[in-house]
Amino acid sequence: MARALVLEETRRLSLRDIDLPQTPGEGAVRIAIDTVGICGSDVHYYTHGRIGPFVVEAPMVLGHEAAGVVVECGPGVHDLSVGDRVCMEPGIPDTTSRASKLGVYNVDPSVRFWATPPIHGCLTPHVVHPAAFTYRLPDSVSFAEGAMVEPLAIGLQAATRARIKPGDVALVTGAGPIGILTALAALAGGCARVYISDLVDAKLGVAAQYGNIIPVNVTREDAATRIRADTGGWGADVVFECAGAAASVNTALQAVAPAGCVVWVGMPVDPVPVDLVLAQSKEIRMETVFRYANMYDRAIALVGSGKIDLKPLISETFTFEDSIKAFDRAVEARPTDVKIQITMGRA
Amino acid sequence: MARALVLEETRRLSLRDIDLPQTPGEGAVRIAIDTVGICGSDVHYYTHGRIGPFVVEAPMVLGHEAAGVVVECGPGVHDLSVGDRVCMEPGIPDTTSRASKLGVYNVDPSVRFWATPPIHGCLTPHVVHPAAFTYRLPDSVSFAEGAMVEPLAIGLQAATRARIKPGDVALVTGAGPIGILTALAALAGGCARVYISDLVDAKLGVAAQYGNIIPVNVTREDAATRIRADTGGWGADVVFECAGAAASVNTALQAVAPAGCVVWVGMPVDPVPVDLVLAQSKEIRMETVFRYANMYDRAIALVGSGKIDLKPLISETFTFEDSIKAFDRAVEARPTDVKIQITMGRA
Amino acid sequence: MARALVLEETRRLSLRDIDLPQTPGEGAVRIAIDTVGICGSDVHYYTHGRIGPFVVEAPMVLGHEAAGVVVECGPGVHDLSVGDRVCMEPGIPDTTSRASKLGVYNVDPSVRFWATPPIHGCLTPHVVHPAAFTYRLPDSVSFAEGAMVEPLAIGLQAATRARIKPGDVALVTGAGPIGILTALAALAGGCARVYISDLVDAKLGVAAQYGNIIPVNVTREDAATRIRADTGGWGADVVFECAGAAASVNTALQAVAPAGCVVWVGMPVDPVPVDLVLAQSKEIRMETVFRYANMYDRAIALVGSGKIDLKPLISETFTFEDSIKAFDRAVEARPTDVKIQITMGRA
Amino acid sequence: MARALVLEETRRLSLRDIDLPQTPGEGAVRIAIDTVGICGSDVHYYTHGRIGPFVVEAPMVLGHEAAGVVVECGPGVHDLSVGDRVCMEPGIPDTTSRASKLGVYNVDPSVRFWATPPIHGCLTPHVVHPAAFTYRLPDSVSFAEGAMVEPLAIGLQAATRARIKPGDVALVTGAGPIGILTALAALAGGCARVYISDLVDAKLGVAAQYGNIIPVNVTREDAATRIRADTGGWGADVVFECAGAAASVNTALQAVAPAGCVVWVGMPVDPVPVDLVLAQSKEIRMETVFRYANMYDRAIALVGSGKIDLKPLISETFTFEDSIKAFDRAVEARPTDVKIQITMGRA
Repeated sequence: MARALVLEETRRLSLRDIDLPQTPGEGAVRIAIDTVGICGSDVHYYTHGRIGPFVVEAPMVLGHEAAGVVVECGPGVHDLSVGDRVCMEPGIPDTTSRASKLGVYNVDPSVRFWATPPIHGCLTPHVVHPAAFTYRLPDSVSFAEGAMVEPLAIGLQAATRARIKPGDVALVTGAGPIGILTALAALAGGCARVYISDLVDAKLGVAAQYGNIIPVNVTREDAATRIRADTGGWGADVVFECAGAAASVNTALQAVAPAGCVVWVGMPVDPVPVDLVLAQSKEIRMETVFRYANMYDRAIALVGSGKIDLKPLISETFTFEDSIKAFDRAVEARPTDVKIQITMGRA
Repeated sequence: MARALVLEETRRLSLRDIDLPQTPGEGAVRIAIDTVGICGSDVHYYTHGRIGPFVVEAPMVLGHEAAGVVVECGPGVHDLSVGDRVCMEPGIPDTTSRASKLGVYNVDPSVRFWATPPIHGCLTPHVVHPAAFTYRLPDSVSFAEGAMVEPLAIGLQAATRARIKPGDVALVTGAGPIGILTALAALAGGCARVYISDLVDAKLGVAAQYGNIIPVNVTREDAATRIRADTGGWGADVVFECAGAAASVNTALQAVAPAGCVVWVGMPVDPVPVDLVLAQSKEIRMETVFRYANMYDRAIALVGSGKIDLKPLISETFTFEDSIKAFDRAVEARPTDVKIQITMGRA
Repeated sequence: MARALVLEETRRLSLRDIDLPQTPGEGAVRIAIDTVGICGSDVHYYTHGRIGPFVVEAPMVLGHEAAGVVVECGPGVHDLSVGDRVCMEPGIPDTTSRASKLGVYNVDPSVRFWATPPIHGCLTPHVVHPAAFTYRLPDSVSFAEGAMVEPLAIGLQAATRARIKPGDVALVTGAGPIGILTALAALAGGCARVYISDLVDAKLGVAAQYGNIIPVNVTREDAATRIRADTGGWGADVVFECAGAAASVNTALQAVAPAGCVVWVGMPVDPVPVDLVLAQSKEIRMETVFRYANMYDRAIALVGSGKIDLKPLISETFTFEDSIKAFDRAVEARPTDVKIQITMGRA
Repeated sequence: MARALVLEETRRLSLRDIDLPQTPGEGAVRIAIDTVGICGSDVHYYTHGRIGPFVVEAPMVLGHEAAGVVVECGPGVHDLSVGDRVCMEPGIPDTTSRASKLGVYNVDPSVRFWATPPIHGCLTPHVVHPAAFTYRLPDSVSFAEGAMVEPLAIGLQAATRARIKPGDVALVTGAGPIGILTALAALAGGCARVYISDLVDAKLGVAAQYGNIIPVNVTREDAATRIRADTGGWGADVVFECAGAAASVNTALQAVAPAGCVVWVGMPVDPVPVDLVLAQSKEIRMETVFRYANMYDRAIALVGSGKIDLKPLISETFTFEDSIKAFDRAVEARPTDVKIQITMGRA
């Protein structure tokens, strides 16, 4: 039994004891959680009880963005030691599946992912996790930053699939948390500069704190027109569509350069009209992103070297005892909120 | 002045004299045309007078799929000689443009393309053409096959952009001329086998003459279900969508395997609903195709070595004097028609 | 205890009982072996007792190219059934290693590979093997062909890493078994035609049985000169160096086209002089190959569809009781020998 | 006639009048030169009279790294105007060649390259140059920086061909000008951090001014051992070999990670022993670099946005009248010298 933040049913959270494994088996470690970030998906399960085909049908522990300290190693663990500061990849694939053998374990249909029904998440003092999906943090990376490696990994997956070339110009549509993290990943990943578009100045202001991120408020300026003007008519080498709205899908296709790439990161609820002939006339490539694979090492290296600074994105931190307040704040987020975190009050 | 097949206006063709250049300048050659194929776009200009933004506003010579013999070399031509049997790439870019310097001269906005208004085509006894876009045919490739290099180049562009890996399984949706040529390109380009889907058995029958092309009539069988069944649930590594219809766009996304690729070859008239979340859940890549670049050498090599046999696809051949009859046959095509050609009556 | 072909020490084989596992654990199957091919490495362990750092220090069962029938499934096996005709990938990685997570499990340093000391091979009536590395054979693929999937996978690894584009022209240097299988993989994988060079006409004759494989005897003709002559001075888009000799390393660099690719397949015993400036002047890419990963499905698909015909390469088949004779024949191979196989005398 | 720095013969320079074109033809512009950097190849022609097959057999103007101002536009120039601040790509290909059509105009054998015999360079007040290879500088980029775009383009070509993924760890062997510029390109292009190795502390000190560049003096520490220690035994994802020495070629192969990439940038005078079996055991990819293609836009974007700061690398600037002194300083370079420039004394 362990104390945990449990989603009992839609709109009802409780902090209570629940039965969770506490003993690491072969190849697993036990980790004392330090920090957990709240993701939009956690909030959505809280407010709606489901995301697409994933329905919360029984009490489920929330949380999947976490960092902590190894406190126990199971048999066969060689690369981690008690006391290691770590963060954890929340999706555990069958490593012998066809997708895993190909290196794309994120699309293995049998992945078990924290806080995706019916799998419990990590908002609890200790978790048991496979060592192969647990990553050591360098001293220069705090637990709070370590708990942000998960959403950053999505941005890095997008940046990696884009196959950015050094000096590319990018557009990110949508300045929410994933849009901003994708912009940072694109810059760190080789772009000379990144335009980011949104309707809300407050969100754009958070993004524009960073050098070489250029805000475009689409209520006042067409993003595609702006980028063409700034690139001698050529367009953006890469567009990361992170808003998931029909209008920004169209902006992406308008803004991208000939032979460029659009990465579809945002998830429109319904099928969205796509002007394939426009896409063809520029012979663009389109990539999609599903979570991430093999990105944790990369994220940690970039945060550790200071190329990506996550600290300005941590908007407020609550204690574990105040977890429900933290979720309520995340539900009623301020425009400048990027990440709300919960700290377990240790280390 | 030269005799040519002229589209005077929508639905009115005439075979008459028209002013066309006959003297090759620097880097150009004059070619005596032997064979010209009729493309769907030629037919569409004939019947509708326009394709999208391209409107026939003055009499225009039709035809852009051609092979012939070099009869005169302009100054500075070193790689071709009088008497060379050749076929010609119909789109001439500005070779100093940004797109051309990048190797994607097909997306150079200044491309001048035969029989795309206001540029005259090649249904005339002699054309003047840049040597750099004129390709020698080996003896094993007939003029009739040489005139089919143009549409085959589209299939090869699709197969190349797909980045087929040896042994991939592909699906082609749509068994029209481009669908069949894409299927042949995919097989020659490394696929172990190619499924091809259509509503019409006669078209599927033409495709199924070839080994390792497996017809699927979608009035009787769901293509995605069939391919998943045949691949242990995995799906098609590559899908070439060549029908341009909303239903087949959806089939493409259903049929493609995790981490697979969909190539959008068909051109839907209007924006078409695309289920991006489905695409993301398999983290697929999507490529688009706009004509071709650097494909003529490849097409000629594959036809020359016998890896691609175009002969079964030449449905009927008319003389130049019967050009209008040839177009009327193309308008009223039989289900088994793939390519109607016109021969100038020489060589 | 099971009967097996055991390499007791250099130059001494015996067919005798030895202790080998016979019970499939979690995720494993037991397979009744039907056919085993003899590889050059098996022969080299027999004649020299070592390959580089791998030294035979205790009796070891030989053989790693095998096909057979599943006779028992361990717990947790869902994708295979008793009676399935299968072939087996002989290298078993740690599927949770960094390399495996990246999809390159072949370079996982902890791979355990059949008949690589101190791991026993498969020349024995039954083997226990992980289901994830056991592949079902279609009815159209015989056990003899199934046992050749292993060396074919090397050729396919080379062809895949080359990133062949449809219509490429390739050169393979060296017409030994791996050279010929690489040539077949290159053709099936998209090449229009493949030149193959060797010193020995008998070997070239075996290769030249196949269409679009063009033999070049380098005692009479320089391979690079020939290919340049046949390609308008351009060179080979891809060169697969399969001889492992200094002279052919140089030929590879001479023959490859600008912006082309050389795949280093052959393994020179010592570091070999490479003219990097020549490579740079054409800005070529060079790929290396280490066994294979994710190639068995592809190999089986290409053999199953008839795109690769392995039957002409099976030179002679011995019974299990005659295994030592089979090895002695492999040691004293005839120039036309490609593959010597041993059949266990069942199914 | 125009005044120019002329290499009369080995070891003899003069500043004198020489016949050079001054009138821009179709598609060309005339540029008033502001700054010219001295490259190691200029120095080598001065001291040795040749580089490999390129021999100075007649007086030749030196210099190929230049920036200036457009002062006259020839007919057909649309994208540049008088007064534009620009830098120039010194190699002019035949834009209709096979290599150019493929986008790899740098390997077009007919390239005419400034100050490569018998083509005159740009150390003269005005040059005539094709507009297509002349690039506008943003206001934030000085002429001195503009004249360094040329060597930076080599670093960017290396970084681009490496296909860096965000967060990669790189090693650069050799801290000369190209090594340092490659390190900066690799960092800007996505690496989390770059190790750079050399024998000379003074050179390493120049590189180590930059964040995330980690110097390794190989007289005191083995670079491969260090990187493996710092990466949990994995190695460098990318190695850029910029020293051109046999020892560093070996270091590159030792240091690179499994499935990693070595880019051969340095040019060893003679063929150098390469341990292909070591390369194969990690299944690495090896890329080569020949100058650059399509890199000027990228270099200018990265310098313009401040992601690459070239200013610390400009060691000393001489006037045009002191050009010979500038060359003599370059011959007797100080260890901390990276780039010696000559300014024409205008703008």
